[in-house]
Amino acid sequence: MTNSILSPEGLEAALREIGATRYHNLHPFHRLLHSGKLTRGEVQAWALNRYYYQSRIPAKDATLLARLPTADLRRSWRSRLVDHDGVEPGTGGIARWLKLAEGVGLDPAYVESTKGLLPATRFAVDAYVAFVRDRTLLEAIASSLTELFAPTIIAERVSGMLAHYDFVTPETLAYFTPRLTQAPRDADFALGYVKQHARSDEQQQAVLDALRFKCDVLWTQLDALYFAYVEPGLIPPGAFTPVNRQ
Amino acid sequence: MTNSILSPEGLEAALREIGATRYHNLHPFHRLLHSGKLTRGEVQAWALNRYYYQSRIPAKDATLLARLPTADLRRSWRSRLVDHDGVEPGTGGIARWLKLAEGVGLDPAYVESTKGLLPATRFAVDAYVAFVRDRTLLEAIASSLTELFAPTIIAERVSGMLAHYDFVTPETLAYFTPRLTQAPRDADFALGYVKQHARSDEQQQAVLDALRFKCDVLWTQLDALYFAYVEPGLIPPGAFTPVNRQ
Repeated sequence: MTNSILSPEGLEAALREIGATRYHNLHPFHRLLHSGKLTRGEVQAWALNRYYYQSRIPAKDATLLARLPTADLRRSWRSRLVDHDGVEPGTGGIARWLKLAEGVGLDPAYVESTKGLLPATRFAVDAYVAFVRDRTLLEAIASSLTELFAPTIIAERVSGMLAHYDFVTPETLAYFTPRLTQAPRDADFALGYVKQHARSDEQQQAVLDALRFKCDVLWTQLDALYFAYVEPGLIPPGAFTPVNRQ
Repeated sequence: MTNSILSPEGLEAALREIGATRYHNLHPFHRLLHSGKLTRGEVQAWALNRYYYQSRIPAKDATLLARLPTADLRRSWRSRLVDHDGVEPGTGGIARWLKLAEGVGLDPAYVESTKGLLPATRFAVDAYVAFVRDRTLLEAIASSLTELFAPTIIAERVSGMLAHYDFVTPETLAYFTPRLTQAPRDADFALGYVKQHARSDEQQQAVLDALRFKCDVLWTQLDALYFAYVEPGLIPPGAFTPVNRQ
């Protein structure tokens, strides 16, 4: 790692390089998920655990919003709350994720209860919320930049899951459609902020580390799923157990 | 203080009794403000210091929102963010408060910088944000209940200031008009929550203490203004000094 200061474009390139090497689209669990290699129960485990991540995103964003110094910045960030919590009951990303969970055969009340959650999912997601609360604002914003890489994985996921699982319908995957526009809008804003404010070598390294951290948060969740439900398939006590394990 | 559990109605009555005895409409600074007894410079000092309180309310509300467990609750609380930060640049309560400050003769950029702030204002307001972050959710919500008493003080303030100060116009006081409907809506929600969730004697006492604390936060800000600008009139080093002191 050099100690020279990067140009804004150089910083963006370094961020994209992290995505190209550490984003969770590269994780073997996602390769199985997208290529139709998982059982219905394993897809359920993914949907159930990922729900906890979804459900904590508004807490993460509100925590970050609380630290933004101006109405302009807060207003921009606020759209994330609207996206996830919706405008009416039953709307928004969390509600749509529950529809996805229901669509793959889970009881949404059970999913919401988080009773079947893998402990590792909880630890990873909670670490993300705490990171955004406790680190510098620059690091907190930089940690959202995995959204730069979201459109690719969403396209892969939707086409792959529709092609390979007969229990998955376009309605079930409706969560992802608005994300194709929301994620790039949010990522553009965060990237612009980071390119403008990370001026010193120390700040730029902190930004890159924040994105690495966030990649770790996402990656770790898939590690836990793979461990519990694929190989070696050791489901922790109390965690969700698919009805028809193969 | 009794140790018996109050009915929801009894709790509401106890909360209203706190308002009747400790809300800042009773503070001598407000009596001077509303009856035309302050100089223009003293009104400016009030507007400048109160700006800091306004500017931190979205941080307080986002901190609280981050702790709410359901999309329904968060969506209700989110309206407070919209009220204060607005939907477009230049809208919302903070922008309207800057208009008020400008209307009474201050440079809005100076107000926004908070350079002329009384340190006591900062301490009191920051204590409120920290209280909402660190106490139980029930206490955090209960601390908002001073809004139960806001319509009375707003009516007094608007009519009194318009009658007594030739430098105050209805446009200058436009901040207060939407507050006449926003504050009761927000207070009704918070009161309903508190009446439903404060079931034990300990919880009810915590709720009453939270409202007392919040009354102290508001009261302390007026103490500091009175001390610095009325009597004894000792302005702390670096704080705003009116151009024409009488």
